[in-house]
Amino acid sequence: MMVKTPNTYSLVRGASEGRTRLNAFDKALLQAGVGDTNLMRMSSILPPAAEEVSVDSIQFPKGGLVPLAYATIDGNTPGRLISAAIAVGIPEDDREPGVIMEFEDHANLDNVEEIVRQMVVDGFEYRNRKLKEIKSFGIEHKIETCGAVFAAAVLWYK
Amino acid sequence: MMVKTPNTYSLVRGASEGRTRLNAFDKALLQAGVGDTNLMRMSSILPPAAEEVSVDSIQFPKGGLVPLAYATIDGNTPGRLISAAIAVGIPEDDREPGVIMEFEDHANLDNVEEIVRQMVVDGFEYRNRKLKEIKSFGIEHKIETCGAVFAAAVLWYK
Amino acid sequence: MMVKTPNTYSLVRGASEGRTRLNAFDKALLQAGVGDTNLMRMSSILPPAAEEVSVDSIQFPKGGLVPLAYATIDGNTPGRLISAAIAVGIPEDDREPGVIMEFEDHANLDNVEEIVRQMVVDGFEYRNRKLKEIKSFGIEHKIETCGAVFAAAVLWYK
Repeated sequence: MMVKTPNTYSLVRGASEGRTRLNAFDKALLQAGVGDTNLMRMSSILPPAAEEVSVDSIQFPKGGLVPLAYATIDGNTPGRLISAAIAVGIPEDDREPGVIMEFEDHANLDNVEEIVRQMVVDGFEYRNRKLKEIKSFGIEHKIETCGAVFAAAVLWYK
Repeated sequence: MMVKTPNTYSLVRGASEGRTRLNAFDKALLQAGVGDTNLMRMSSILPPAAEEVSVDSIQFPKGGLVPLAYATIDGNTPGRLISAAIAVGIPEDDREPGVIMEFEDHANLDNVEEIVRQMVVDGFEYRNRKLKEIKSFGIEHKIETCGAVFAAAVLWYK
Repeated sequence: MMVKTPNTYSLVRGASEGRTRLNAFDKALLQAGVGDTNLMRMSSILPPAAEEVSVDSIQFPKGGLVPLAYATIDGNTPGRLISAAIAVGIPEDDREPGVIMEFEDHANLDNVEEIVRQMVVDGFEYRNRKLKEIKSFGIEHKIETCGAVFAAAVLWYK
């Protein structure tokens, strides 16, 4: 096999203004606690029996390669709302994988989080897999000059 | 070195409707046989002498990190056609790497597959590398409400 | 841990025309010296004390998985200018990570490179980290038919 399958996950979020979109995104990553790592974005499955841990309890190697699934949206229209949310569906059978969904929009967080939770329900339904619990996490931000929001499920090891 | 270089590849495809674009994509991944893994998208080179295997013969770790190259397109305009295709060029000299190309469009599959095959021809030509064979694979779908197509070369190990 | 953290970096660039956008990009990768690898794009942090090496001194495994951060832009409007630049900020304290920024635009390279360097300054400022040096590298290209530019910081091992 290639890379060891992660066995923990952490839900994180950040929102920020910046001089450019990438700077706003970078600051949102710092706020989320993953700003000094190299994030590897993946399509989004929760490994079986993965354990939820606080991101603060993890000492990521500086500049280390960290797999994650994320929602993000940025913009530079003052006054516009941006929201990003992540949802994790935990299966009843912990030998099965869970589903991670991400969604972002120019909308308030309630709307975005409702959609991303429904996406998890759908993902379990067409997998014919029983859903035990959904955890969701997100953030909303009103753009001042140039802003970004970020919500993620970070996968890691213990 | 970092990560072991893969030595097999599998051509896969899927098409689906879903309530959101990400759900349609997720269902297309399930149909393609890679829906319960964490896909890591990469720029697209076939390792030397990689062997083609059926995706059904692979037991991916659930939630495991799987490298691949893919074409995808989604949309929510009822009646529009979407097609995605992948092509793999095998070199005459099996000590050399091959080339993987991906293409997607609002067009029928014949057109998309013809273009992606030509892309492989071009990739070998400007590498001054002799081309033994092209394998291509793709899928077309007429959008009902919200649809996605997906065609990929999945890299793995044996 | 998952994947060994890289300890070298190389600044590379390429510009090319091609029959399709992906072919133009692929040729730009070849020109940059990374065209026969599988590039894994990441968010962009320089591991502490990473050493700069020439890409020509690296023997990448053919088809191997190579982590990097990059800027790219392509287009097919004859006569338009495209530029991509990468900048790396080295911290005074070599136990801290550096910051890699990428930027691309329809503009000349001077403009793009000035912006990407400022992005590094900002990234250090809001990290409260002392900046020792910025290295930047980029490329500009006037589109003939269908062109792409690419500038990257490739991470690797020694």
